[in-house]
Amino acid sequence: MDDKRVVIVGAGLAGCLLATLLGRRGVEVDVYERRDDPRASAAERGRSINLAISARGLAALGQVGLGEQALSRALPMHGRMVHDPSGAESFRPYSADGTRAINSISRAELTRALLDVAAKTPGVRLFFDHRLTGVDLATGELRFETGEGPRLARADVVLACDGAFSAARRAVTFSAGFTYSQDYLAHKYKELTIPARDGDFALDPDALHIWPRGESMMIALPNLDRSFTCTLFWTAEQFAALTTPSEIVEHFRAHYPDVVRLAPNLVDDYQRNPLGSLATIRAWPWVHHGRSGGDSGSDRRGGDGTSGQASVGPSAKATAGGSSSGGGGGGAMLALVGDAAHAIVPFFGQGANCAFEDCVEIDRCLAETGGGWPAALTSYERRRKANCDAIAEMALDNFVEMRDRVNSHVFQARVAAEHWLERRLPGRYVSRYELVSFTTMPYAEIPGRIRRQNQLTTLAAGALTGAAGLAAATILGRNR
Amino acid sequence: MDDKRVVIVGAGLAGCLLATLLGRRGVEVDVYERRDDPRASAAERGRSINLAISARGLAALGQVGLGEQALSRALPMHGRMVHDPSGAESFRPYSADGTRAINSISRAELTRALLDVAAKTPGVRLFFDHRLTGVDLATGELRFETGEGPRLARADVVLACDGAFSAARRAVTFSAGFTYSQDYLAHKYKELTIPARDGDFALDPDALHIWPRGESMMIALPNLDRSFTCTLFWTAEQFAALTTPSEIVEHFRAHYPDVVRLAPNLVDDYQRNPLGSLATIRAWPWVHHGRSGGDSGSDRRGGDGTSGQASVGPSAKATAGGSSSGGGGGGAMLALVGDAAHAIVPFFGQGANCAFEDCVEIDRCLAETGGGWPAALTSYERRRKANCDAIAEMALDNFVEMRDRVNSHVFQARVAAEHWLERRLPGRYVSRYELVSFTTMPYAEIPGRIRRQNQLTTLAAGALTGAAGLAAATILGRNR
Repeated sequence: MDDKRVVIVGAGLAGCLLATLLGRRGVEVDVYERRDDPRASAAERGRSINLAISARGLAALGQVGLGEQALSRALPMHGRMVHDPSGAESFRPYSADGTRAINSISRAELTRALLDVAAKTPGVRLFFDHRLTGVDLATGELRFETGEGPRLARADVVLACDGAFSAARRAVTFSAGFTYSQDYLAHKYKELTIPARDGDFALDPDALHIWPRGESMMIALPNLDRSFTCTLFWTAEQFAALTTPSEIVEHFRAHYPDVVRLAPNLVDDYQRNPLGSLATIRAWPWVHHGRSGGDSGSDRRGGDGTSGQASVGPSAKATAGGSSSGGGGGGAMLALVGDAAHAIVPFFGQGANCAFEDCVEIDRCLAETGGGWPAALTSYERRRKANCDAIAEMALDNFVEMRDRVNSHVFQARVAAEHWLERRLPGRYVSRYELVSFTTMPYAEIPGRIRRQNQLTTLAAGALTGAAGLAAATILGRNR
Repeated sequence: MDDKRVVIVGAGLAGCLLATLLGRRGVEVDVYERRDDPRASAAERGRSINLAISARGLAALGQVGLGEQALSRALPMHGRMVHDPSGAESFRPYSADGTRAINSISRAELTRALLDVAAKTPGVRLFFDHRLTGVDLATGELRFETGEGPRLARADVVLACDGAFSAARRAVTFSAGFTYSQDYLAHKYKELTIPARDGDFALDPDALHIWPRGESMMIALPNLDRSFTCTLFWTAEQFAALTTPSEIVEHFRAHYPDVVRLAPNLVDDYQRNPLGSLATIRAWPWVHHGRSGGDSGSDRRGGDGTSGQASVGPSAKATAGGSSSGGGGGGAMLALVGDAAHAIVPFFGQGANCAFEDCVEIDRCLAETGGGWPAALTSYERRRKANCDAIAEMALDNFVEMRDRVNSHVFQARVAAEHWLERRLPGRYVSRYELVSFTTMPYAEIPGRIRRQNQLTTLAAGALTGAAGLAAATILGRNR
């Protein structure tokens, strides 16, 4: 095993899981987090209170012994509850047999559980209140701003688990050959709360609730305290059009009548909670070396001469007195992990699940290389890229399905046909939703499989009312 | 006219032209350039020595009285000279009548000429050796690093003309809702020189020379000193495969035999000149306001809390002692111009031409708004975006044409057919190349026009050897 100094930037979901996996492998790892220890502070208002953990996330959590614990603190949601504009509800199970569920869990609580496990893992050291201000891959030096002034650290391997707007990534963002994009949706989000009513859930807790409204939508997920967190996904123009209490109440009365009844703090939540943006981030390569050959920083299109060295915030000043260039030994490797490599929109509930898979893959690659980092990280990025691209696209696509198609007759007929095929051909015919949420099939294999299945679904949709169904099932049976 | 403090960042081609246009409009403008005054220093080695100015660029230069001067220092290229692997040459005119030319001109010389004009324009002040390290749009403060220490400036309007890797753009790069991408080609570039031979051009100076080689290519443009600047466009792997003198010479002997004869410094150029990268940069919006409503910086996907304020380099330290937040008055507007808004690959020779059009459009919009900046900049970005997107795509597409299709029989037949139609239908049928290079038709209108024409070209390609040509011409005549 290489004797490398390993640093993880970010002690969120991915950072904690990865630290734990590495620690168990005998790797010493220092984790730097810009926030305070969340186990000692309160959650922020209106900021993604819950997330949906499904098969991939549970498999990863299982590797560090948290699978059962997570499930015990989660609320299973076995299907979608669709709310139409009249206030009527209808339930659509996620799986053909109705037994599969995704799991609503508190992001803060899951993070705290992962922190506890990481903190107890030998070799893992956690540093809070350390905001990364600069990384120099040529020397392996990391600069942090802390409540007690600037701090320096050195690393041979930097694992950037610091999210969609990764500070660590800025070390390479403007280097030649780094293909990068951030694409924002026209839609923004805002959270609202439906509190418990008479001590119980005000809506069915066994469902992810959706109010599909064509161009926009609202969803709601249950919390352990029997409240629901609602999230509005509207365009910026739609949000801007409602400002006064009466405008807000009138609009909800017209389009979300049940919510007006269930959310007594609607106006206050709407007026005070922040608007969030939704972006897809794509980057390549994910792995960078301080001592790469090839490009100089001097070309006119590629970089600005700061390649491999970058300041990431206004306070780079603090440490710059004694920084850079001299340094000890060789350069560092930097790998982007989770949202830092591939932030996706939340419409498939796969952001955290996908990030967890990244961590498990890094661990697996290290096992295969006997602890050799360069080869392990190269395998990691090679294996994960296509999968993460695939879920990014499916997540964007699912927004249209949720807000619009979920309520159409054609869509309902298709789901019914899918479930009909799934029951008749168990394990052979599985819907996209189930492949994403209830299996660990690599994401990249799913679109192709679905395309092949779709031809049959089309046949079967007609077959639900006719004899052609048997023919479809027979053809599928023969073709496999 | 608004009484705004206007700053241009970057005294390259776009910055100088824009400063001159604004100065003539009575706007006082300070221009900050990170390099020294190029009128007092030498050119860098292997860095885009020449560029091709065509109709759009000449129209813009004409507005500041530089059209004639530029042409007098340029070398017209009336067509492509294609070099096949045997060393044989064949000439293909750019226009049907053979009279139209693009113009090879020294980037350094054109920049110096524009600097001279800007420096003489009342109201324009030029500051060299000023490297932008931070912009705070909330206060309008700009921070610079100079040879004599840090400097501050304030602006109400910041015009970012500082190129593909714009430092000014970093003020908004990580703000919520800023859609941005940098896409690198797998191909890199490297420049070589074919010196004058016996005091004369070693190749025909009236052509842009192309060595199309399928996956890769080389081009050469003539210089006033009778040398040619060659640019290799190869993949990184192709470059990496040749390192020793004998490998280099053997490869060129096999694939570019004429170049071995003409370029005595081939090995030295190849080994010493830097590898450049090629990127397409897309960004939106181009115009930003320090006091925007809407998004807070506190959401989980949108930004990192530094929206509207950013440090752009390691030396933000220098000025941070007395910086920010207090400040005087309202926020600043920032507009991206030229490569900072939309860097494109060089294969249509339109990067500078397109940037010049941006400057002219800003000037036109200011005329229309009577000097009102917010409305002018909003019109500017609205009118230019689709055009710049269109030329970005056409430039990417032209790479394939130049390196691959230009030498195919199908392509040659198509060009011949186009020229045949152009001669028969002057002004009605015009090739894409001519619309881009020899007209000022908005770029965005070109793809649609070409699609409509293509149906006819296909007919006409056959018609060159048959009677259907008359029919095609007749149909076209009727349809217009």
